[in-house]
Amino acid sequence: MKELVINNNNKILLIILDGLGGLPLDGKTELEKARTPNLDELTGKSELGLIIPVDYGITPGSGPGHFALFGYNPLEIEIGRGVLEALGLGLKLDKNTLAIRGNFATYKDGVIVSRRAGRISTEENKRLCEKLKREIKSIKGCEIEFHSGVGHRFVILIKGENLSAEIKETDPQKDGLPPYLPEPILEEGKKTSEILKILLEKSTEVLKDEKEANYFLLRGYSKVPKIENFSEKYQLKSLAIAAYPMYKGIASLIGMDVPKSPVNNWEEEIKELKENYDNYDFFYLHFKEIDIAGEDGDFERKVSLIEKFDSLLPEILKLNFSVIAITSDHSTPALLKSHSWHPVPFLLYSSFSRNNEKVKFCEKSCQKGSLGIFKATKVLPLLLAYSLRLKKFGA
Amino acid sequence: MKELVINNNNKILLIILDGLGGLPLDGKTELEKARTPNLDELTGKSELGLIIPVDYGITPGSGPGHFALFGYNPLEIEIGRGVLEALGLGLKLDKNTLAIRGNFATYKDGVIVSRRAGRISTEENKRLCEKLKREIKSIKGCEIEFHSGVGHRFVILIKGENLSAEIKETDPQKDGLPPYLPEPILEEGKKTSEILKILLEKSTEVLKDEKEANYFLLRGYSKVPKIENFSEKYQLKSLAIAAYPMYKGIASLIGMDVPKSPVNNWEEEIKELKENYDNYDFFYLHFKEIDIAGEDGDFERKVSLIEKFDSLLPEILKLNFSVIAITSDHSTPALLKSHSWHPVPFLLYSSFSRNNEKVKFCEKSCQKGSLGIFKATKVLPLLLAYSLRLKKFGA
Repeated sequence: MKELVINNNNKILLIILDGLGGLPLDGKTELEKARTPNLDELTGKSELGLIIPVDYGITPGSGPGHFALFGYNPLEIEIGRGVLEALGLGLKLDKNTLAIRGNFATYKDGVIVSRRAGRISTEENKRLCEKLKREIKSIKGCEIEFHSGVGHRFVILIKGENLSAEIKETDPQKDGLPPYLPEPILEEGKKTSEILKILLEKSTEVLKDEKEANYFLLRGYSKVPKIENFSEKYQLKSLAIAAYPMYKGIASLIGMDVPKSPVNNWEEEIKELKENYDNYDFFYLHFKEIDIAGEDGDFERKVSLIEKFDSLLPEILKLNFSVIAITSDHSTPALLKSHSWHPVPFLLYSSFSRNNEKVKFCEKSCQKGSLGIFKATKVLPLLLAYSLRLKKFGA
Repeated sequence: MKELVINNNNKILLIILDGLGGLPLDGKTELEKARTPNLDELTGKSELGLIIPVDYGITPGSGPGHFALFGYNPLEIEIGRGVLEALGLGLKLDKNTLAIRGNFATYKDGVIVSRRAGRISTEENKRLCEKLKREIKSIKGCEIEFHSGVGHRFVILIKGENLSAEIKETDPQKDGLPPYLPEPILEEGKKTSEILKILLEKSTEVLKDEKEANYFLLRGYSKVPKIENFSEKYQLKSLAIAAYPMYKGIASLIGMDVPKSPVNNWEEEIKELKENYDNYDFFYLHFKEIDIAGEDGDFERKVSLIEKFDSLLPEILKLNFSVIAITSDHSTPALLKSHSWHPVPFLLYSSFSRNNEKVKFCEKSCQKGSLGIFKATKVLPLLLAYSLRLKKFGA
């Protein structure tokens, strides 16, 4: 693949409408119900298809769903829970950072009496992390950071050389049991284990007067995985425009640029796209809220958000991209209130579309589309092909 | 995959209409010609597709066709001819059983003059096996069993420790040549080879006065393959309901339960299904006769049998399964009088179907269906997904 890639000036835009695919309610899916004149207009110049993010029957998380669209085998990339949680908080990670999920907990007479510290509030969590931050800044030459999350969950980053994720998790998995010690699983975990034991000791001292959160459990030790750089792999100078930290994090992991100042809504994302149009070859544009409506089981809100995207589309089309794909990392049917395994609508606009029939953009038209049903890992080769960035294979 | 499986109370039914797919005669396939109001009604709540049992152009035997539907790679499971023949006779096999295909033959002056003993009758075969049974019961501490089959074919089971299939077959493949000796191919076959030589010596003595079947050839030495247990692999307590021994045998090989007393026809199979509904998660229901009609080249009989199944369907639907798949292990077009490589109609009923258009259930509608054309090994992941028995992959 890499040997076939060539460079040119054709610009590619990959729009991910998170959670786009749906299931019918009263006979129509969210997409079928939505009035989308601009998307429908585009189908007449586009190839349509359905993509399978990971495999038949497999419901993908956002990570695997995105990696597949970016041309990586999602089964080969393993991202630890600590790293994922950190990306979700928008934290910067490098190869010398160990990310750990911390859960505030209540410790009494040698056992964990509440693994979630009685489900403390996010506000309380913030206060506790500030307190820990003030007292604990480094151990054995390694920088220690505390980042509060939602409820009882927070993230600890340890920054230094030769840190290892090969450590026993301390969560006993059930209330009423003693916590485990962060013992090394492999020899390479020895140094990290020592740091974590000191960390626990110091933290327990800091938290000793807390009624509920007087302890924390350590889980999901992980470092960023080694992933081939996207821009190099495909010779595409790439920019990721997303409002939510997790998606910027995923894009950063594969070496895409992200805008310096945060973009907070769809309009700002499109503004960012316009301003950076001249500086990049490949743009990943992520719209989150459609997925949230699906997760909430709010069929009508999902419909309106799809319509809202449709109304913004002409603004994007003005920019004159050579290739535009509109799809998603997974389906999120309002009916299921969760991600699902159902194939995802896929539209590919370019000057070289075989299809020229205008249809309603929806699951059914995509299923009958010129691209058929295919794996999401094939999306990137298609984007390269339609932008004339792939040489002939063989003579 | 195994890591994603969870357990719940949703019940899954996989109906295999053996040999279902067909080819058109006077413009219509068997399925297209059949009046199937109940199946057609079900399509409005089902996803349709065509499955490829093994690979493009490959005509599967019943073994590979079934293994693929049960989620096993049929290219990785090798079942010896001896084991297959034994399963077809309904024999019980365990890891200490060596199964061998025996062919009665005529031996004269050091050569095999007829490799099929002049095509003796099944009745004659029975008489000969009874005769052998009476005289030969064990050799070197290993139990010996003779089981008559069709025509000149029978099965020998040897039961004991350390038996091996690494033995030279004795069939010279052509009349007029001397039989081979059952010599060991590998060192581990030594003990088995000795037993077989004694067996041949004793049997020749028993059969010496027979005019035609005074000898037999040994082929297809095999033991049951090691296959991952289906119920454990998918956390599905599973029952196989089939009238024909081969299919019960295949299901037993992967650890499915089979009813204690035999079921002899479709009505009895459905009765069994009802009686066991509460006790299992997964039901494999096998209807054989459609395939036989196809093999006989009897287009009209195949049509009526499909119609008969359709008339029984409402009885099955009353049981309230969460997921029902209706498909086959291969096509058996009456036009070809044999199994064929043509993709197989597949229907998947559940509450989470994207499709909601009622169509005639047939090869053409399945080809245009929401699931597309896909490999039969994906059927089981889909059944798990639609029954909400698969966790999200990745976060």
